[in-house]
Amino acid sequence: MRALVKTNSAPGLTLQDVPEPRPGESEVLIRIKATSLCGTDAHIYRWDEWAQQRIRPPRIIGHELCGEIIELGQGVTSVSVGDYVAAESHLTCGVCFQCRTGQAHVCKNYRILGIDVDGSYAEYVVLPERVLWITSREIPPELACAQEPLGNAVYAALVENLAGRSVLISGCGPSGLFAAGVARTSGASIIIATDVSGYRLGLAKQMGVDHALDAKAECPESLATIIRDITHGEGIDAALEMSGDPTALHLAFRAVKNGGRVSLFGIPKGQVSFDLPNEIIFKGIRVYGVTGRRLFDTWYRIAGLFKAGLDIRPVMTHQFPLADFAKGFDLIETGQCGKVVLTP
Amino acid sequence: MRALVKTNSAPGLTLQDVPEPRPGESEVLIRIKATSLCGTDAHIYRWDEWAQQRIRPPRIIGHELCGEIIELGQGVTSVSVGDYVAAESHLTCGVCFQCRTGQAHVCKNYRILGIDVDGSYAEYVVLPERVLWITSREIPPELACAQEPLGNAVYAALVENLAGRSVLISGCGPSGLFAAGVARTSGASIIIATDVSGYRLGLAKQMGVDHALDAKAECPESLATIIRDITHGEGIDAALEMSGDPTALHLAFRAVKNGGRVSLFGIPKGQVSFDLPNEIIFKGIRVYGVTGRRLFDTWYRIAGLFKAGLDIRPVMTHQFPLADFAKGFDLIETGQCGKVVLTP
Amino acid sequence: MRALVKTNSAPGLTLQDVPEPRPGESEVLIRIKATSLCGTDAHIYRWDEWAQQRIRPPRIIGHELCGEIIELGQGVTSVSVGDYVAAESHLTCGVCFQCRTGQAHVCKNYRILGIDVDGSYAEYVVLPERVLWITSREIPPELACAQEPLGNAVYAALVENLAGRSVLISGCGPSGLFAAGVARTSGASIIIATDVSGYRLGLAKQMGVDHALDAKAECPESLATIIRDITHGEGIDAALEMSGDPTALHLAFRAVKNGGRVSLFGIPKGQVSFDLPNEIIFKGIRVYGVTGRRLFDTWYRIAGLFKAGLDIRPVMTHQFPLADFAKGFDLIETGQCGKVVLTP
Amino acid sequence: MRALVKTNSAPGLTLQDVPEPRPGESEVLIRIKATSLCGTDAHIYRWDEWAQQRIRPPRIIGHELCGEIIELGQGVTSVSVGDYVAAESHLTCGVCFQCRTGQAHVCKNYRILGIDVDGSYAEYVVLPERVLWITSREIPPELACAQEPLGNAVYAALVENLAGRSVLISGCGPSGLFAAGVARTSGASIIIATDVSGYRLGLAKQMGVDHALDAKAECPESLATIIRDITHGEGIDAALEMSGDPTALHLAFRAVKNGGRVSLFGIPKGQVSFDLPNEIIFKGIRVYGVTGRRLFDTWYRIAGLFKAGLDIRPVMTHQFPLADFAKGFDLIETGQCGKVVLTP
Repeated sequence: MRALVKTNSAPGLTLQDVPEPRPGESEVLIRIKATSLCGTDAHIYRWDEWAQQRIRPPRIIGHELCGEIIELGQGVTSVSVGDYVAAESHLTCGVCFQCRTGQAHVCKNYRILGIDVDGSYAEYVVLPERVLWITSREIPPELACAQEPLGNAVYAALVENLAGRSVLISGCGPSGLFAAGVARTSGASIIIATDVSGYRLGLAKQMGVDHALDAKAECPESLATIIRDITHGEGIDAALEMSGDPTALHLAFRAVKNGGRVSLFGIPKGQVSFDLPNEIIFKGIRVYGVTGRRLFDTWYRIAGLFKAGLDIRPVMTHQFPLADFAKGFDLIETGQCGKVVLTP
Repeated sequence: MRALVKTNSAPGLTLQDVPEPRPGESEVLIRIKATSLCGTDAHIYRWDEWAQQRIRPPRIIGHELCGEIIELGQGVTSVSVGDYVAAESHLTCGVCFQCRTGQAHVCKNYRILGIDVDGSYAEYVVLPERVLWITSREIPPELACAQEPLGNAVYAALVENLAGRSVLISGCGPSGLFAAGVARTSGASIIIATDVSGYRLGLAKQMGVDHALDAKAECPESLATIIRDITHGEGIDAALEMSGDPTALHLAFRAVKNGGRVSLFGIPKGQVSFDLPNEIIFKGIRVYGVTGRRLFDTWYRIAGLFKAGLDIRPVMTHQFPLADFAKGFDLIETGQCGKVVLTP
Repeated sequence: MRALVKTNSAPGLTLQDVPEPRPGESEVLIRIKATSLCGTDAHIYRWDEWAQQRIRPPRIIGHELCGEIIELGQGVTSVSVGDYVAAESHLTCGVCFQCRTGQAHVCKNYRILGIDVDGSYAEYVVLPERVLWITSREIPPELACAQEPLGNAVYAALVENLAGRSVLISGCGPSGLFAAGVARTSGASIIIATDVSGYRLGLAKQMGVDHALDAKAECPESLATIIRDITHGEGIDAALEMSGDPTALHLAFRAVKNGGRVSLFGIPKGQVSFDLPNEIIFKGIRVYGVTGRRLFDTWYRIAGLFKAGLDIRPVMTHQFPLADFAKGFDLIETGQCGKVVLTP
Repeated sequence: MRALVKTNSAPGLTLQDVPEPRPGESEVLIRIKATSLCGTDAHIYRWDEWAQQRIRPPRIIGHELCGEIIELGQGVTSVSVGDYVAAESHLTCGVCFQCRTGQAHVCKNYRILGIDVDGSYAEYVVLPERVLWITSREIPPELACAQEPLGNAVYAALVENLAGRSVLISGCGPSGLFAAGVARTSGASIIIATDVSGYRLGLAKQMGVDHALDAKAECPESLATIIRDITHGEGIDAALEMSGDPTALHLAFRAVKNGGRVSLFGIPKGQVSFDLPNEIIFKGIRVYGVTGRRLFDTWYRIAGLFKAGLDIRPVMTHQFPLADFAKGFDLIETGQCGKVVLTP
């Protein structure tokens, strides 16, 4: 089969023919219908410091996918050949404290698809049956493959109820854009989004935000004032930090009202310095570290939100054949895209 | 001023001239712009057993209202003349355990507007400043007066997050209809409503329910099967019991999935018999007794839900001048109405 | 091996020699060190209506156990030969909505040890590795086997935080007695227990309750008054209904304060009639159906509570060799016991 | 009356005669029985930068107190002359979003006793009736005055249930010591405390901690290893950061397990730099900013914990007459004390 392989310790990926994988016990073979690019994949493509320490070539990368089951390994009982599936990308251990208490998203021993085992930038992939998510055929492949990253946004947004609450989304990459859609569908009263890219603020508007604020045009002080005015001096109920940018992070903590909450999802590059008393303690806020998706509560919620009318099409801006992967990664560098999908 | 008074211990109400009330310390005088009919008021109008035991005539009744502040009593600091307000109808004591721990909606000593003190079916009403809710002028009086009963529905629906969850609403009186709108706005995946009235099921569809099931045409067994099919055998995440009818109550407990929740708001007339092991215990569900509104969390949420697009107009079916109150109460008897509003 | 077998559809059990079971894939063979009697086993022993409909003889019964792993089936990775273990008795399916969202205790498809598969009243038992709970050797077998029923009490008691809260425990069978110990260890302010048996009220005192009220000597009205007085008129924060007796059930709902909570664990025999408005709705309480144990959150909590000083010895009143099982079941009939343990 | 007054903008306090205050409307006059020293008072005594910016002399300071009501102002209804009371020190506004939604502890407009209004280092103090807490006479004055700071610890410790959970307390000043007692009483499985003072680690042991670790003798790396070993590699369920020291802060985030929680109460002096991905995000933890006490939920809980056996005597190490206040402040500087109480 054809697959995108990190063949050696250097930038780039190679499209090459590799043997088709075989499903082992409790595993299935899936024909990929669509697979999307994640920031993590871009790190691996560029071969930055993080990637150099984390990836052991050769490795087929990619972890956001949907496809059809075409073969069952021994002992598989919960899915059938022909099922249309997406997959949780965290291959959890099942036996640690976290896995045994409903917190498998922070499993101490999880391995990641496309990083620790061969991934989805290929014609076929083998996956354990337990990470599969049977998906409604009403969700076309180019949307269904994005359920995994959408799940991050669902978890970050809905860790507390947003109905009737005001929301700040700092950062309008795909995760922030997804979060905007989730907040809109879930009854948020006011949604304010910030980003430095006019292109992405445009997408944010398409996803239903009420106020798309340009963090390049306005200084933090000015953004804080605008948010205060929009909320009639009250501040924000829920700040979703989806960028990892220190300036955006501090804006989130500044904008949130006393007794509100902050979801931290975006990954800053280095250390971030905080004024703990004024940013967290005296405000009496709750801060949630958000990683992955609740297994499988978040996935059920995704299905429910689609039924409720969540439309992520505006985020899914580009689609390429697998062979044109470089175009996708180049686009991500420019920031002039939402989510990029590859089709084998 | 003119007011609707329960003048003596008998059915009916009398429109009569009474002295305009004067605001005492920490109280305000309000000119009523709209006031709506509640089932409780219908009980008092009919003078049923409950009313005979609860009401001490003479009493101006009515507790759902909006209006404009026209005079401040001594010591009022949080509102101003000209403010456009609705009001919490529970006049809580402020000093009991419940009031001191954020649960004033179940205050042990509360008095109710229009029952224990003179109410809103009048040109003016006096209210303590602490129960007032300043309302956006974007909400016209004929909707703003219904925030109090809407609050019941908001509390019943959102006691747990509905985003991406399936909902059953048993009973499509005004409270059930409001709950349908709240669930829709808050991201419910599927909303199923039941009622015995075709008229009200029609209103339920206008409020956005996906399935309006006729409980007169279908036996409980059949309704349960339909709901099971709609939910692909899973059952309902959240059942909102808004009718108080025993058949509807049991349907709610039967339809809810293992680990789901039931909000009990509708008031049954007599005792209701339960199969506790199969209806509650072995299902591992949570049951919430819902009364009143969270002070003032629910009110803030109402404001937020209006901003999120909640539209209650389809529920507000009729409007009459105060003098035509009998038409309103007659309509309620027929069930061919949603909420009925009176304007002084 | 020797085992207690329900050989045919009639009262009683037969101690007989049966083939030693063999561990299949992902299963282990355990040498039983201690196994305790549950009310469910007494139902099967007596062969009451429920048992007749539920059990298909021949069946080795028993589901509360501890022992040592002596052989591993194929593919077992999370435990080793020699491990000292107890076991979750609910053999959950792992693939239903409930299992996939951290609510396996209400799995839609679970089978029960000693009911649907051969159980622990034997020298050996085979169990799936995933239900095993490695237990500290500081907990001797005659206590370790009771972790399963103790888990019910832990879940019922701690579904909400009890620290500094007043507690009513209605029913002082083993589950109620365990709950008393859990509440005491978890910082309950006042613990009131009720039962009709003076013997069991004596055990309740040994488990640390502050007030052991005799429900045979006092009428419900009088018990309610006593509880009101003890709580200075406030009522109870948390009522744990551990008896299933209708009179005790209503006392629980009557005693709980507005905004409090009731855990329903005891199983009533028939229908129970409720005054919903006054017992649940107007009180604004939360009612939890409690069954089984949170997998495996409750088990971790049990281990933690033992470390915190929880002492269940007073509940473990009797111990017999397996052959004397009839003495144990006779004792249960009399009610003059706490938990009865059998040793093979 | 005699009072400790910050008479001008300089270090120290002056014991002087001042006019006895008079209770206004909804206020009461209290004869102080005991009043304790807080770190905040030490800041004011030393006249550090914070104090210089916050305090406007002349001001009677002190905000931890108990006493007896000796006179009622106009309109007081909820307390009586002779009542034995402590007091919430945050004089909340009652009308902001936070106050109206059960979060008055983060009121946007609160004033603080002994900072914004005259405080409790005096023979008498005037307080609004709504901040009073009627206290059981079983709690002697030298303990009852410490309920206010004890409340901080109760809130920090019990923001999530500790029963059966492992706890790290970083910092054994009075707040950390109180938290240790609360955790012990509330069923914590293992309590580990750290401090740099041998004296305070000794007090921690008296308060029931299982492991008192000397942060002066061990480097952070070594402390982390010790904690990992104590918890069998699992990490801590709940870290209570009570010191504000950056090294202790990072230890708390490092020690907490994936999916655990951190309560931040201690106030660092400057900015603190975080590795957000590894300290919060990838761990999927919850971080709570803790300030003040939940009004009045925390106060009810304090009363309940005393009944449950909480004993704070080991923390209350010193007692002086009001005139010897300098001895108390000197002691605080040395760190060779727990809580210091003054009696007028």
